[in-house]
Amino acid sequence: MKNINIGLVGAGTVGGGVVKMMHENAHFLRSNLGLPVILKRIADKEASRFGNLPIGNTICSGNASDVLNDEDIQVVIELVGGTTFAKDLIMGALEKGKHVVTANKALIAENGPAIFELAEKKGLSVGFEASVGGGMPVIKAIRESLIADKISSVKTIINGTCNYILTQMSEKGLLFETALKKAQKNGYAEADPTLDIGGGDSGHKVAIMASLIHNGYVPFHKVSIEGITEISKDDIEFAKDLGYCIKLLGIIRKDKNDSAIDVRVHPAMLHKNHILSSVSDAFNAVLLEGEAVGPILLYGKGAGEMPTASAVMSDIIDIARNLIGGARNRIPMGYYNKSNELLVKPIDSIMMRYYLCFWVIDKPKVLAAIAALLGDHQISIASVMQKEGGGENCVPVIILTHKAVEKNVRAALIEIEKMEFIKKKTHVIRIAGQAY
Amino acid sequence: MKNINIGLVGAGTVGGGVVKMMHENAHFLRSNLGLPVILKRIADKEASRFGNLPIGNTICSGNASDVLNDEDIQVVIELVGGTTFAKDLIMGALEKGKHVVTANKALIAENGPAIFELAEKKGLSVGFEASVGGGMPVIKAIRESLIADKISSVKTIINGTCNYILTQMSEKGLLFETALKKAQKNGYAEADPTLDIGGGDSGHKVAIMASLIHNGYVPFHKVSIEGITEISKDDIEFAKDLGYCIKLLGIIRKDKNDSAIDVRVHPAMLHKNHILSSVSDAFNAVLLEGEAVGPILLYGKGAGEMPTASAVMSDIIDIARNLIGGARNRIPMGYYNKSNELLVKPIDSIMMRYYLCFWVIDKPKVLAAIAALLGDHQISIASVMQKEGGGENCVPVIILTHKAVEKNVRAALIEIEKMEFIKKKTHVIRIAGQAY
Repeated sequence: MKNINIGLVGAGTVGGGVVKMMHENAHFLRSNLGLPVILKRIADKEASRFGNLPIGNTICSGNASDVLNDEDIQVVIELVGGTTFAKDLIMGALEKGKHVVTANKALIAENGPAIFELAEKKGLSVGFEASVGGGMPVIKAIRESLIADKISSVKTIINGTCNYILTQMSEKGLLFETALKKAQKNGYAEADPTLDIGGGDSGHKVAIMASLIHNGYVPFHKVSIEGITEISKDDIEFAKDLGYCIKLLGIIRKDKNDSAIDVRVHPAMLHKNHILSSVSDAFNAVLLEGEAVGPILLYGKGAGEMPTASAVMSDIIDIARNLIGGARNRIPMGYYNKSNELLVKPIDSIMMRYYLCFWVIDKPKVLAAIAALLGDHQISIASVMQKEGGGENCVPVIILTHKAVEKNVRAALIEIEKMEFIKKKTHVIRIAGQAY
Repeated sequence: MKNINIGLVGAGTVGGGVVKMMHENAHFLRSNLGLPVILKRIADKEASRFGNLPIGNTICSGNASDVLNDEDIQVVIELVGGTTFAKDLIMGALEKGKHVVTANKALIAENGPAIFELAEKKGLSVGFEASVGGGMPVIKAIRESLIADKISSVKTIINGTCNYILTQMSEKGLLFETALKKAQKNGYAEADPTLDIGGGDSGHKVAIMASLIHNGYVPFHKVSIEGITEISKDDIEFAKDLGYCIKLLGIIRKDKNDSAIDVRVHPAMLHKNHILSSVSDAFNAVLLEGEAVGPILLYGKGAGEMPTASAVMSDIIDIARNLIGGARNRIPMGYYNKSNELLVKPIDSIMMRYYLCFWVIDKPKVLAAIAALLGDHQISIASVMQKEGGGENCVPVIILTHKAVEKNVRAALIEIEKMEFIKKKTHVIRIAGQAY
């Protein structure tokens, strides 16, 4: 072998970053690996994207099949996104005996089993470090560093858009809509932000992590997902008064005696002393709790051109080192398989503490009525805060519960919301962590 | 190949942890790797250490050469510590064609070149993840995840003993000696704590990290090292008043236009909003700043039986995967070589801000005299705080400087300390970081 030949499909933001890194590090990579890593071909439908990149015209193509059909190419990098064309591309590359690197979390979360099955059959590697947590080595930490440990829980802030919006709401007192617009203006949110603010993007990443940690397949559609669109400026203020902040959290837990894994994404209240509370703006963090290793936190930029490109590069170099050393598929993925589907705990059965914000008519006995209805559903109250104001003779009553079963909370709320003293929709936020 | 056969030398705390993890994870490892990882032989001079471990008598030995001479053993784990016997053991294992895993930071920092040279010659791997940061994947992050990035700076809290002592002094108002005794009582400090509190242990780890990051050899004896023994309860209080906390920090920096690397360990003041300020107790953290990836923080337990055992296990599995896949020495270490020694910046030439605590006679014109002498050495004052009390007509005058050259600060202090109004030794602490 004289070179490691790379083919790249998708010359957008991350693709451009990868090209720049390969170009700038060419000399170092050659000396570190002992042979050059060469970008043999790059394909994108939009030829204009090639313009600013440090590449010669001869390697550019408008057609991804030029990458697949180049017999010299050993590794195909998929950076087109989406789950249709990208899937065909990756399957095609594997069929042709090429290793694959991708940053596509949706694709891995939704089509991981098909991709890994083919890769196993062919003895090929699929690198997907960039799919979770950008430049943070999340996948590598799980599949390699902590492989002999049992990771009993994960708490993660894994979507920069949501974290930026929530930080803006908390620090600048912005309304959700204003914070979202600011995120879009600053490049932290897409024109269509649904996948981010709806929690789907976090859900994809959490499904992938849960599968890797529990050595099976956690289907994305089994992950319970709730986004941040319902979080109000009031909730954030009230949480702050109570010593908490609100974050969109991905949670993966498995109790020893439980056959099902608790996998979910939802806004959560974290005590202000919790280590994840200090993760602000567009930063991401993954807090893994290993039985042997204890808590491990990874913190960094979870998205963006260069952090994501750095993760793609780390996969390329991993595969290059395998190729040079003679190993093919070094880290088996056979377990990430539909026949190995893992049981996911229904959200109804989880037990947590809850923040409940009722908007009620300001008159006697309302609090007593709420407390009684909660009590009927085995929900016990830890603290109450009634605030003034709110207008329209309407005041917020904030209740923090002791640990309660989600199903009971939902049932109690249905009854309480029927009461004539309730003026607005009750806001429910799960309390995920006391101090660290 | 039917098995991966392991030989372990050193059945102390970490060795015991490794035996337990191999035992408990035997089934999982077999299914993940496709073949069993077997502890073929374990050696320790103290036979009593075998007693509590889940191993049969037949594999135990009092003699390390039984491990080296076992031809079935492919991987030798060195957990004896020290730099004499341990070095012979590792060199002997490599000579016999065995891969090596070690947690020995002193050995790697001081004898890395000889070890890696022999390993390269023989095409063997030396795993040393456990030598830096216990269970945190520091080595893997540098050698694999961030390999295509340029790490421009590292700030790290990498010694749990010192961090525990400083946290106790700060949170409980303990004197240094009291905090040290408490650390010893709670198992966070050795009976002879010199290597920890003197900064040598941090220095070993920082020398290793600097070598890996800058692809050469940073000799341990070139690292400027200062421990925490001079830090007083007063310094910690005064720092707190000024919005700072004091941590023992490892620093690695290289400016683009500089040929030398700034590598050092010393107590440092960090602004209370700096992300490393929240790293308390025996926890460790490594803040890497990559040009592409931005800031990445790794946080976790940097020492202890099981966290360190987890890192040893990750190296064993890495080597097992190499063996199974057919690759031998997958990550070349040829650069970690004496002929590749890197230039280390003399501490005299660094520029930082400084905290200076002068203990002076409480009379007029003293501050003016100090300020004048600092000015003579091109040191400009950012802020001054004079506190009451101190006894013996002696008061502390605390000065925070603007950026100044270390050499100038040292020269100014020699002159100032000659003045008759100075009553006690001046305390100097470098200011390492404003808000994050």
